[in-house]
Amino acid sequence: MAKKQEESGSFTSNDLTPVAGGGLLDRRLFLKRGLMFGSATALAGTAGNLFAEETALEKVVENKITSKAPWMLKPGKPFSNYGQPSPYESEVIRWISANAMASGNGVSWCPLHELEGIITPNGLHYERHHNGVPEIDPAQHQLLIHGMVEKPLTFSIDALKRYPMESRICFIECGGNSNAGWNSRPVQSAAGHFHGLVSCSEWTGVPLSVVLNEASLDPKASWIIAEAADGIAMNISFPVEKAMDDAILALYQNGERIRPENGYPLRLLLPGWEGVTNVKWLRRLQVTDQPVMSRNETAKYTELMPDGKVRQFTFEMDAKSLITSPSAGQEMHGPGYYQITGLAWSGKGKITKVEVSADGGMTWAEAELQEPVLSKCFTRFRMPWKWDGELAVIKSRAKDETGYVQPERDVLVKERGRHGYFHYNAIVSWEIVPEGYVNHVYS
Amino acid sequence: MAKKQEESGSFTSNDLTPVAGGGLLDRRLFLKRGLMFGSATALAGTAGNLFAEETALEKVVENKITSKAPWMLKPGKPFSNYGQPSPYESEVIRWISANAMASGNGVSWCPLHELEGIITPNGLHYERHHNGVPEIDPAQHQLLIHGMVEKPLTFSIDALKRYPMESRICFIECGGNSNAGWNSRPVQSAAGHFHGLVSCSEWTGVPLSVVLNEASLDPKASWIIAEAADGIAMNISFPVEKAMDDAILALYQNGERIRPENGYPLRLLLPGWEGVTNVKWLRRLQVTDQPVMSRNETAKYTELMPDGKVRQFTFEMDAKSLITSPSAGQEMHGPGYYQITGLAWSGKGKITKVEVSADGGMTWAEAELQEPVLSKCFTRFRMPWKWDGELAVIKSRAKDETGYVQPERDVLVKERGRHGYFHYNAIVSWEIVPEGYVNHVYS
Repeated sequence: MAKKQEESGSFTSNDLTPVAGGGLLDRRLFLKRGLMFGSATALAGTAGNLFAEETALEKVVENKITSKAPWMLKPGKPFSNYGQPSPYESEVIRWISANAMASGNGVSWCPLHELEGIITPNGLHYERHHNGVPEIDPAQHQLLIHGMVEKPLTFSIDALKRYPMESRICFIECGGNSNAGWNSRPVQSAAGHFHGLVSCSEWTGVPLSVVLNEASLDPKASWIIAEAADGIAMNISFPVEKAMDDAILALYQNGERIRPENGYPLRLLLPGWEGVTNVKWLRRLQVTDQPVMSRNETAKYTELMPDGKVRQFTFEMDAKSLITSPSAGQEMHGPGYYQITGLAWSGKGKITKVEVSADGGMTWAEAELQEPVLSKCFTRFRMPWKWDGELAVIKSRAKDETGYVQPERDVLVKERGRHGYFHYNAIVSWEIVPEGYVNHVYS
Repeated sequence: MAKKQEESGSFTSNDLTPVAGGGLLDRRLFLKRGLMFGSATALAGTAGNLFAEETALEKVVENKITSKAPWMLKPGKPFSNYGQPSPYESEVIRWISANAMASGNGVSWCPLHELEGIITPNGLHYERHHNGVPEIDPAQHQLLIHGMVEKPLTFSIDALKRYPMESRICFIECGGNSNAGWNSRPVQSAAGHFHGLVSCSEWTGVPLSVVLNEASLDPKASWIIAEAADGIAMNISFPVEKAMDDAILALYQNGERIRPENGYPLRLLLPGWEGVTNVKWLRRLQVTDQPVMSRNETAKYTELMPDGKVRQFTFEMDAKSLITSPSAGQEMHGPGYYQITGLAWSGKGKITKVEVSADGGMTWAEAELQEPVLSKCFTRFRMPWKWDGELAVIKSRAKDETGYVQPERDVLVKERGRHGYFHYNAIVSWEIVPEGYVNHVYS
């Protein structure tokens, strides 16, 4: 609040001077609380209100006060032990894209275009399963740590719950997220059905370093193989260095125990690293001195580059951003004021800047980053915009604390070639046509 | 991470020197990643592992690797459009305490003692209803702003969604939370069933100041009456100053649209202010120059003080904290290392310090505050503790950025008298008996 008040100050007509092409306005406009929109319309010389309906007649107001909607005429529903969304939100769901031959193989997409803020509610966290969701009895589940350790150990869930914990809000993103971006033609899907293999939760659990030190690592240990308790015993390996840095044996997600589809009762959390390494239903950690070279780090989650070499062990997710509103499939309500908003994230640390363009990338202006801005976490950005009703192409580009800037699509394609399938993080462009429809374009 | 690494350094036996009575250890012990618990046991001279089971025999390890739990022998469950908790967590629910004569009147308690981190999942956010949960069609719902304004306005939900939004993670606490604390004998309930009329979410919506300025306030306006669209048209008033400061017309909770029991489709969010002022199902804001003096600000949510005067309009929730683990009804596993953890919050700003005592308040030591520490938000605190197995009384006390310190119970009772019912925020004491049971005591 202190910062806000300091930055706000008095509102002048200069505040409505575009800061970049296509009508982008100063991001600090949003900090001028209680002044912006009302004053904006006044200063801009437009009559009336922005989106509200004016009720000038006293009897109209009186009627609105006294008239009661049907749900005000009777007692409401009773309390519930565990709440659910409104039936009117029944279309805000994960979009399932599973293998027709194996119902537990595939993904479900998080509807990012329907969500706000940075937290993904647990019911809508994206899913990626290889062989379905095991229904694990936590009383029977164990974690085994063995291999290049002095003392092989097993941990029941009850034992793990006794260790010191820590919490962190961070994203998990599938290495294959946004892969339709590699298509030669822009796919026309809602933002979440195209980029929604990423979600952000508050995770809580035991630092992996704590239990590894109990087992006492062999000084020559350099890799750890993580294995899941699902129907394919999914496995993948990761360097010991990450384990000792910020890896967490996660037991809780957004306050409650992890959901079955997110790894109940135990998930390996490697903050900022591609989803497949965040092994769900974790049952075994084998300490070793080389990667396991399993299917998920050889045949999959690798990329053939233009020079014939293959990118492998590309664990850290690069900086990325996405405008969620307005976005493909949504509709504008005619020329006027809008808030462009979206998400930015980086597996390498904090987002330091998000720039937005409303003229297809010719000019850019800095968006407001919603606090808190956390490392390896979704950052919500917001940008005031006055759309003139003409054809516009809007896009966002993120920069993280390493100095890395999200690339334009042609740059990414040139660098990686056309055999890519994973790790697509190019700038996303939405075209807004005068009729108000929003399309996905390559621009 | 930078801060963590800097603070960690090498681990010495001094790190296990208690910093306060009853075996409290330095909070920074938790920052010495990968060293603490393993080294702690080694340095303390105890044999073996802390809570893990050692599997020294190679064939035991081999057997654990090859043996498969039943859920590994078959494909798992398919994807779901909207996830639910594991059936094994079916007892982690809100505890309903409703009026036998009116099923929609009462409360349901958030199981704080079962949760971790700072986010409350939407399904477990506490409820307080006066006449049940209305099932509102958002297409028919409107917000009317009238009274001492230049232009009375109505807003559909679709119109509100077009305004600029902001997000903030903050708690909402019922003014009647913890009221069993006023009882002359300590109630023996789980922490959440005693203090769980408080929850914390990321809320997103339109700053109220923005729409009030569209309506253009009369300079003499000083109060606003908020009315709900439930079966009693619940109403209460609050000062214009709060509206222009940080009030939000909230549409989203933890990313998705607000749940019906939390005010779908629109809730007034007054960060840090007692729950009843955060009017759910918001339908009307009447700008005025005096409070409405409704039931909920006269007969209820007021307190008769020892001098015969009544406290009224005690909007801001004072600083408070609560150890959630170990807490009443939980059981210890014998002497040894534990992490004491809990929540602290203040309606007046950020929590600046939480102190923990393990000897009934004779000595105190500072707990670690989990980042991010946000204003008017839950702050998770953690404290390493070596319990010697003897009778112990643990308690926590919070301090906020105004300098206010959570009071001991006898101090609060002396100040407020025994006619109180609301705004109980005294220090909570849990007694741990040698057999490992945890009881609520006044100490």
